[in-house]
Amino acid sequence: MNDENPRFFDLVGDVRAIRRLKPDPVRVEMIQQVLNAGVQAPSGQNLQPWAFVLVSDPERKKWFADRYAAAMESRFGLPINPGDRPEKHARGQLGAIFHQMDHLHEAPYLLFVCGKRDWPFKVPDAERVGLAPPNYGAVYPCVQNILLACRALGLGAALTTMHQVFEDELHEYFEIPEDYGVVVTIPIGYPEGRFGPVSRKPAESMTHHDRWGNTKQSPE
Amino acid sequence: MNDENPRFFDLVGDVRAIRRLKPDPVRVEMIQQVLNAGVQAPSGQNLQPWAFVLVSDPERKKWFADRYAAAMESRFGLPINPGDRPEKHARGQLGAIFHQMDHLHEAPYLLFVCGKRDWPFKVPDAERVGLAPPNYGAVYPCVQNILLACRALGLGAALTTMHQVFEDELHEYFEIPEDYGVVVTIPIGYPEGRFGPVSRKPAESMTHHDRWGNTKQSPE
Repeated sequence: MNDENPRFFDLVGDVRAIRRLKPDPVRVEMIQQVLNAGVQAPSGQNLQPWAFVLVSDPERKKWFADRYAAAMESRFGLPINPGDRPEKHARGQLGAIFHQMDHLHEAPYLLFVCGKRDWPFKVPDAERVGLAPPNYGAVYPCVQNILLACRALGLGAALTTMHQVFEDELHEYFEIPEDYGVVVTIPIGYPEGRFGPVSRKPAESMTHHDRWGNTKQSPE
Repeated sequence: MNDENPRFFDLVGDVRAIRRLKPDPVRVEMIQQVLNAGVQAPSGQNLQPWAFVLVSDPERKKWFADRYAAAMESRFGLPINPGDRPEKHARGQLGAIFHQMDHLHEAPYLLFVCGKRDWPFKVPDAERVGLAPPNYGAVYPCVQNILLACRALGLGAALTTMHQVFEDELHEYFEIPEDYGVVVTIPIGYPEGRFGPVSRKPAESMTHHDRWGNTKQSPE
């Protein structure tokens, strides 16, 4: 699967979260192709309630990376300083998560996928907690198209949602209007390692025929 | 794009909602291939919080179609009886929605894509309104893979969410446990008409560079 327009059933099982990215530049035209795949997703009444903030400015990426690391520490107790981490955490999935956290500002792009809040997006005088959620039913299909398109072009990507811890600050710093929520942040770049297949339970094991509990398929 | 494993960038812009389906049977192996594409989606901690109810039993499809039509009438005032509809409603998107409503029980399959509710899924003694929502952030990427896979195999599909109006009854009739929500219902079958490209605004028009409002791309 080396060409830049792979076949769907070869692609779909090979979209692993890639958390180790090279700092090498990525042509913005590739990101435009990725986002144009994203916006092909369906949405109720074709409202297309998504928007993108594409961050490549080093200072702004550093601003985000610092707050991301602080959020990881405050929420999960993951030490910001690599010297404070047990050696065994250098490997495996936690190792990849630490790597992503330490190198977030070096990713060529941080992509915020925003979603318009459901109407009415705010009750008058409500606190932020009273804001309606973004339209996940449209934004997440768009996000999945983005992940597939990144992989198709040989770009690494992974979903992160830790920005929710500092979403007020994020809105202010990037001037994002209140009627949009930031749904996911996706660091994008060329992968340091290899792509590879994902590990999933077969659909058959969670398919119920005609009623829940009937997982044995009836004869046709 | 006639083969059964099309190239991704050819596929992604051609996944229109198909609401007019032939009643012709569809091999269950095709649906299994579709669902196995679905479960390749990412989910936090790889929890794979989805499940499927695949309905092909005529009586059960009719049960669903009757309640679906009643919900369309009660929510949108769309007449169940075709004779009560203005003639102009036979065409266009509303025509397709009426067709889907009238022929829902004839679709070879109704697929309920279910999502595990976020923990804790229920506050003790809470009413249904107090249930946590399903994990949309995992289920909707799975749904998008399902739509892409249907189109790849030449199957028509469209998202519907009107079951939410009668979700309590739906849970009882199909014996769906309370810790799962039904996120979307997708009627699947061969299309009556043709597939075709979707109409979307270009991503460039909703991409903000480094901060919201800066839609003009900075020189690199």
